[in-house]
Amino acid sequence: MGDIVSKVKSYQKQGKKIVAVQGLGFVGTVLAAVVAEAKTPEGEPRYFVIGVNTPSVTGLQKIAQINSGQAPMVSPDQELPRLLHEAAMVNKNLVATSDNSVFAFADVIVVDIPFAVNNRDRFDPSGIEVGLPAFETAIRAVGRFMKPEALVLVETTVPIGSCEKIILPLLKEEREKRGLSGPIYLAHSYERVMPGPHYVDSIRKYWRTFAGMDKPSAVYAEEFLSSFIDTSAYGLRQLANPTASELAKLLENSYRAMNIAWIYEWTLLAEKLGINLFEVVDSVRVRKGTHDNMRYPGFGVGGYCLTKDSLLAQWSASVLLKTHITLPMTMEALRINYNMPLHTLDLVRELNHGDLAGKKVLVCGIAYLPDVGDTRNAPAEQFVGELKKEGAQVMVHDPCMQSWPERTEVLLEQDFSYGVASSEIVIFTVAHKFYKDLGVEAIRGDAMTPPAIVDAQNIITDEQASLLHKSGCRLLGVGKGHWRSLGYHL
Amino acid sequence: MGDIVSKVKSYQKQGKKIVAVQGLGFVGTVLAAVVAEAKTPEGEPRYFVIGVNTPSVTGLQKIAQINSGQAPMVSPDQELPRLLHEAAMVNKNLVATSDNSVFAFADVIVVDIPFAVNNRDRFDPSGIEVGLPAFETAIRAVGRFMKPEALVLVETTVPIGSCEKIILPLLKEEREKRGLSGPIYLAHSYERVMPGPHYVDSIRKYWRTFAGMDKPSAVYAEEFLSSFIDTSAYGLRQLANPTASELAKLLENSYRAMNIAWIYEWTLLAEKLGINLFEVVDSVRVRKGTHDNMRYPGFGVGGYCLTKDSLLAQWSASVLLKTHITLPMTMEALRINYNMPLHTLDLVRELNHGDLAGKKVLVCGIAYLPDVGDTRNAPAEQFVGELKKEGAQVMVHDPCMQSWPERTEVLLEQDFSYGVASSEIVIFTVAHKFYKDLGVEAIRGDAMTPPAIVDAQNIITDEQASLLHKSGCRLLGVGKGHWRSLGYHL
Repeated sequence: MGDIVSKVKSYQKQGKKIVAVQGLGFVGTVLAAVVAEAKTPEGEPRYFVIGVNTPSVTGLQKIAQINSGQAPMVSPDQELPRLLHEAAMVNKNLVATSDNSVFAFADVIVVDIPFAVNNRDRFDPSGIEVGLPAFETAIRAVGRFMKPEALVLVETTVPIGSCEKIILPLLKEEREKRGLSGPIYLAHSYERVMPGPHYVDSIRKYWRTFAGMDKPSAVYAEEFLSSFIDTSAYGLRQLANPTASELAKLLENSYRAMNIAWIYEWTLLAEKLGINLFEVVDSVRVRKGTHDNMRYPGFGVGGYCLTKDSLLAQWSASVLLKTHITLPMTMEALRINYNMPLHTLDLVRELNHGDLAGKKVLVCGIAYLPDVGDTRNAPAEQFVGELKKEGAQVMVHDPCMQSWPERTEVLLEQDFSYGVASSEIVIFTVAHKFYKDLGVEAIRGDAMTPPAIVDAQNIITDEQASLLHKSGCRLLGVGKGHWRSLGYHL
Repeated sequence: MGDIVSKVKSYQKQGKKIVAVQGLGFVGTVLAAVVAEAKTPEGEPRYFVIGVNTPSVTGLQKIAQINSGQAPMVSPDQELPRLLHEAAMVNKNLVATSDNSVFAFADVIVVDIPFAVNNRDRFDPSGIEVGLPAFETAIRAVGRFMKPEALVLVETTVPIGSCEKIILPLLKEEREKRGLSGPIYLAHSYERVMPGPHYVDSIRKYWRTFAGMDKPSAVYAEEFLSSFIDTSAYGLRQLANPTASELAKLLENSYRAMNIAWIYEWTLLAEKLGINLFEVVDSVRVRKGTHDNMRYPGFGVGGYCLTKDSLLAQWSASVLLKTHITLPMTMEALRINYNMPLHTLDLVRELNHGDLAGKKVLVCGIAYLPDVGDTRNAPAEQFVGELKKEGAQVMVHDPCMQSWPERTEVLLEQDFSYGVASSEIVIFTVAHKFYKDLGVEAIRGDAMTPPAIVDAQNIITDEQASLLHKSGCRLLGVGKGHWRSLGYHL
């Protein structure tokens, strides 16, 4: 802490600003790195950045990693460890701590803590449970320590109305305890971080929407965001108030979830009619601007956002804002996405004439995105649970995962060849490049009995499917009605 | 007919092909014009084109118009009358007739007749009624007269499985009556015609998907399509079979309908929360390739296609193909779109404290698209019906319409100023340029009592709304929650 104080003083002396980032998760970490990268016109670090995380076991681990210039998560984007190393070890303008009192130094406090939804499998408004208490506690900590004139910039995806109905009153309350009555600078600007190969650029080179609680807050937020985002290429979009910005984020993610859900019923139809739906979707996606975001058939939806943001929207409307508005299509989409892996289970059952008891099954892919080591709310979770319920002996494989934090009891096989050789059923559930590059022989394996294969992610080409079938494999694929009409499952 | 025969013979002598287009509606007319425009490498007309329509009153009128080189419909695209004039009057390689026997001359017969859905307000599979008999009659006419080796290219949006289960068997039956047993060349290639300013180019410079019943049919169809579509810029997409192509078209239009429907529930929420949803959607649409086709709030959905294609899909699945597959999200979207104008009605009611009896109402816009004189299945139809049910005195206005063929009993006022001056309530239901260009004074009118205004199509800017409210108008707008929070409705 002594080190932080002297650093802060030295930066303040130079007339430079101090930025605190609350929450060092997938967003806060990369945000802190990008803000630390920002330079003055003279090419010096523009800010001193302090990352703040709760002192949980993993929190303290993250703090230690960042302080030693290492990324606290595996990412295909090598820019993240580079930036963190540069900031923490070379420029020394980034530190991490669990001490909330550092908010007292900050000119800008960026809120990147989660706003959780506890149950993602309840789709009626009254059943949605959110993590409001933990969020409130974190906001109170900001109010308790913040400089009177600091900007609080909320990046968290929050329920609609949170800045006005939750955050502002809490800050006010905590500040009043300290005898502060001046204006509060509060803004919302949601992130669009994607933990893939463009992880870092999904902050610094991407579109941003923001809104201030009042005019001065908006001006302050705009100035700050412009200092680390390439706004010449990606101009900021200002909305009228934080409520609009909060709604925009939930709308945006709900739209994606809905588009994913919608293709599901057409997937069932295409499979029934012997149609290759991938080919059909490709032929429709040529229509740029109207149809090029049509989703392909797939296994399911995971991740932190798309599985919960619609629930946050409905919770806002029903609970926080007490309206009678419901979002039936939006909620139905979430329900469809949640249950989507059950269709792959149906295909597995079909290939095994309904009986999975005692079957050795290899599930290939537990991450929620291709080529990313992230299993948060992955659809494989529910799927593996269902396979086990039916008595299958399940083994999983994922080239991006060393362990499966959410399902530690499941056997994670590191050696794909061994996994295939010892399985009767192989199911491709994530479109990792590793699987796409396998080739027929690796997929077929060298077991005496060729495995039955279900391809839920368009991993296997038609040519490969034909060869696999000739070599004794039986196959079915999500959205691949043509395999069925070719009799590959027989 | 004698003239047609001599023309046909002359073209045949030159080794050129004869193309018949069955059905001279919004698609067939422009298709005939574009095919007639196609040239040989020497710059001569490539085809002799015969348009065929049933001898109804309007059908005979269309035939006469085309034969005199005139467009049988009003279009903002001046290319259509130009092409028709050139083909019918200058090159003389386009004629129209009601005589089905001309199919006997054709090397290619393009089917552009409608496949109707009779009830567009029933959303359960068992309630869908389609116009199969009329379609069958038309296909039989082709089979009865066609050359044995002609290609039948179906452009009509048909139920999934139509080529295989309906068209091929009918052609076969009719040909067998004539003692023909050779191969039948049949393909499906759906059009994406938009009757707007790029009407003609929506055929000749746009993406095309096609599929043949067998390999020779596909080759034939590809050759024909390439002769009048700019395939160097818009490469053809081939699908495995006509069933896939038929599904692709219904999928494509259902996707659009679903995206329109989805924004509706968010419109209600935004209005409740005082949010300008247009601004929010604009801020989200910057995300090209994933979110840039998000729809804006609006009045409703009309036209020939989006109001029925999902019904055709469900009818295919349930009735023609006898599967148990349902398309619940798709059908729900159609239901939402159908009922969408009722929300505008709610806003009208709100401005008038629930009582519309005896109120003088001006509905501005009856077309289903901006700047197009086309009222097929326009949402204004249901809307005006509801207004009348509540006892309102309804007058309509539309700068693109001289009459309202579907609702001849409704008073269509040609003079907008007179309409406004004599109305207590003005409702903007179509985003015609005429309305967008009006300006505050024209919208306000010169009546003693300023009208109450409902803007269902984002016609009125915020600046105009402010001025209109100051001048005594009360306003509400679909998706314009901010007007409500500004108290413009009070």
